[in-house]
Amino acid sequence: MATPRELFNVCTPSAALHLLLEHLGPGPGVQAERVRTRDALDRVLADDVCAASDLPSFRRSTMDGFAVRATDTYGASEGLPAYLEVVGEVLMGQAPHVTLGPGEAAQIATGGMLPDDADAVIMVEQTQTVGRHTIEALRPVAPGENVVQVGEDVRAGDPILPHGHSLRPQDLGGLVALGIVELSVARRLRVGIVSSGDEIVDPEQAPGAGQIRDVNSYTLAAQVRRSGHEPQLGGVIRDEYPLLEAAARQTLEQSDVLILSAGSSVSVRDMTAQAISALGQPGVLVHGVSLKPGKPTILAVCNGKPVFGLPGNPVSCMVTYDLFVAPTLAHLSGASASRARTVQARLARNVASAPGREDYVQVRLEERDGLVEAVPVFGKSNLIFTLIRADGMLKVPLDAGGLAAGSQVTVVLF
Amino acid sequence: MATPRELFNVCTPSAALHLLLEHLGPGPGVQAERVRTRDALDRVLADDVCAASDLPSFRRSTMDGFAVRATDTYGASEGLPAYLEVVGEVLMGQAPHVTLGPGEAAQIATGGMLPDDADAVIMVEQTQTVGRHTIEALRPVAPGENVVQVGEDVRAGDPILPHGHSLRPQDLGGLVALGIVELSVARRLRVGIVSSGDEIVDPEQAPGAGQIRDVNSYTLAAQVRRSGHEPQLGGVIRDEYPLLEAAARQTLEQSDVLILSAGSSVSVRDMTAQAISALGQPGVLVHGVSLKPGKPTILAVCNGKPVFGLPGNPVSCMVTYDLFVAPTLAHLSGASASRARTVQARLARNVASAPGREDYVQVRLEERDGLVEAVPVFGKSNLIFTLIRADGMLKVPLDAGGLAAGSQVTVVLF
Repeated sequence: MATPRELFNVCTPSAALHLLLEHLGPGPGVQAERVRTRDALDRVLADDVCAASDLPSFRRSTMDGFAVRATDTYGASEGLPAYLEVVGEVLMGQAPHVTLGPGEAAQIATGGMLPDDADAVIMVEQTQTVGRHTIEALRPVAPGENVVQVGEDVRAGDPILPHGHSLRPQDLGGLVALGIVELSVARRLRVGIVSSGDEIVDPEQAPGAGQIRDVNSYTLAAQVRRSGHEPQLGGVIRDEYPLLEAAARQTLEQSDVLILSAGSSVSVRDMTAQAISALGQPGVLVHGVSLKPGKPTILAVCNGKPVFGLPGNPVSCMVTYDLFVAPTLAHLSGASASRARTVQARLARNVASAPGREDYVQVRLEERDGLVEAVPVFGKSNLIFTLIRADGMLKVPLDAGGLAAGSQVTVVLF
Repeated sequence: MATPRELFNVCTPSAALHLLLEHLGPGPGVQAERVRTRDALDRVLADDVCAASDLPSFRRSTMDGFAVRATDTYGASEGLPAYLEVVGEVLMGQAPHVTLGPGEAAQIATGGMLPDDADAVIMVEQTQTVGRHTIEALRPVAPGENVVQVGEDVRAGDPILPHGHSLRPQDLGGLVALGIVELSVARRLRVGIVSSGDEIVDPEQAPGAGQIRDVNSYTLAAQVRRSGHEPQLGGVIRDEYPLLEAAARQTLEQSDVLILSAGSSVSVRDMTAQAISALGQPGVLVHGVSLKPGKPTILAVCNGKPVFGLPGNPVSCMVTYDLFVAPTLAHLSGASASRARTVQARLARNVASAPGREDYVQVRLEERDGLVEAVPVFGKSNLIFTLIRADGMLKVPLDAGGLAAGSQVTVVLF
């Protein structure tokens, strides 16, 4: 039987992702759920949000001082101050009980509401008390000075946050300021994770001779959480086709997305591709990507759901999650592209690469002479600790034969 | 009565933080709790972790091929191959049932365990099958070639992660690989948050004339979550001294840390400082920082717990959380310094500042001619939407009179 692997050519990482997203299509649209705004940190907005009212809804003082009619202060100076009669005080959180006639002022604190006839605030430091109800203004204030106008923060009807935006602390503050205490966000996706391999045991178990503990289920689950979604562990499956297909099918039924992390031998990889093809149409789209580590990656769509066959080596598995799974989850949630956490650094030594292949190199960051240096952490891609000793990764582009020591590089932090 | 504000001089942000941490001292040590490793993402390790065993614990093949004695392949070439007898197959997840005599080989898949007498693996692509049990090795392999040695990933006794480290996805993978399925992490701190102000109402309420909804409780709560800790909302308190002191006292009793977000008028700020002083010794340490926005910040220690009086303006409140509260929480958790999420950008226009003051300026990032430009988002510090329209902040150092358009700046992303 022709294995699915033979039906597909190796393609570039970006072409591979593009092909996958194209087959997913716009889909049924983002599935939204209502949540309280206070619980919406890091959630992705499902709809555009507009302001229903002006913020602030009244004119506020930005200083401790006196609300005045600006014209009454024109020409005032320390030598020739303007005399104003203090006719009352604005209390915080209340509409002013005073109105100002010509030559009148009202005491006001920062955040207080301006009386109707006032149009500016003079700071207390720029006044002098000369009687029980009289002050001197020692300088002029312009209309609007020390005042936040109605709608100066946001105007009613203004778009404030677009759909796809990931909510930050200040966004929650701005939303509640407008009285938006509940909103629609993209539902978290359920991401099923199945590890396979006759040599893999659950971490709670002591491995026997020739056995190792499952690493990828736990690394992947944490990566899924970092992406803002819900991992569902399907356990460790033996390398027997009926078991693998059954576990994949069952986990996919209960999930929106499926990740299979399989061993790295050719026979196991082919079995994984075969099991994925059995899950639904169109099946395997990409089997093999011009990428190191991560060449044997499988990308598939089965009955509208994305399915990933990631290499079993922990380093390859982590890299291919970031390159293929994370952007697919963002696509399904309608999330806008977010800025990666990066650091600019100087490469400490030459890194070789083959042209026509994208390489990802783990690096440790070290401060040297006040500069950040990226020191490659070399190690076989089946060594999980090369990832732990590293602070991030750098990419050697497809068309580069390597990177020279001393070059400026962008390191994507873990 | 002398208000506490008058007792203290304005100090620099770094001196202020230093003073606070010094008064907190090493404290009672980090309070730890045991959690399952799989639930420990982003938690802070309470103890150093060492490897109890070698990883891997057996010699593994990194290729599909044949386990061999390297000496048997010396001198082999396509023209003059070495003939090897295949005496068995290594099954995945099991100790090999074969031993190799001279001139013998065993079939092995990627990840398989090497038989005792083998010391290298020859890739299947470098062999040719010439009989039912005979292969030709077409090139020589060196001892150790295509093999991961015992302890090559980690050796028993090696320190693998230090206390204070925040656990990333791959760290969880590495820990479970070593059978560490439970560990000690710093307990999440309870951070009480109290907003005060006669003009502030709960966001669920429709504000009356002169009233605004509470913003800071929700922004601060989300910032506390981002720091990995547990916010506890103490609600909105009226600006009456007995009410404020009682709410502060009660919230602090139930928390490890207290944040008061008060209005910006001088009388309210002084009342906040007085209430904090009443909570315990030594009380207010810093009242006023050479910082914009955020000058009226109060830092205190009351009976061993840090207490913060943050300015009520939303921008000042957010900036001062990042500068003072976040590093204090990290200190109490024993967390190592983490790299801020930054972007290098070119400043789009001049930013003025006063020497002797640290300024924080909100900026929006825009791509222009393939470069990232930081465009200042100006706005009064009581406008929450200046934070929402911005992607991050940049710092104008204490001794700078400003930053010139075109300079390279580091933007800390929100």
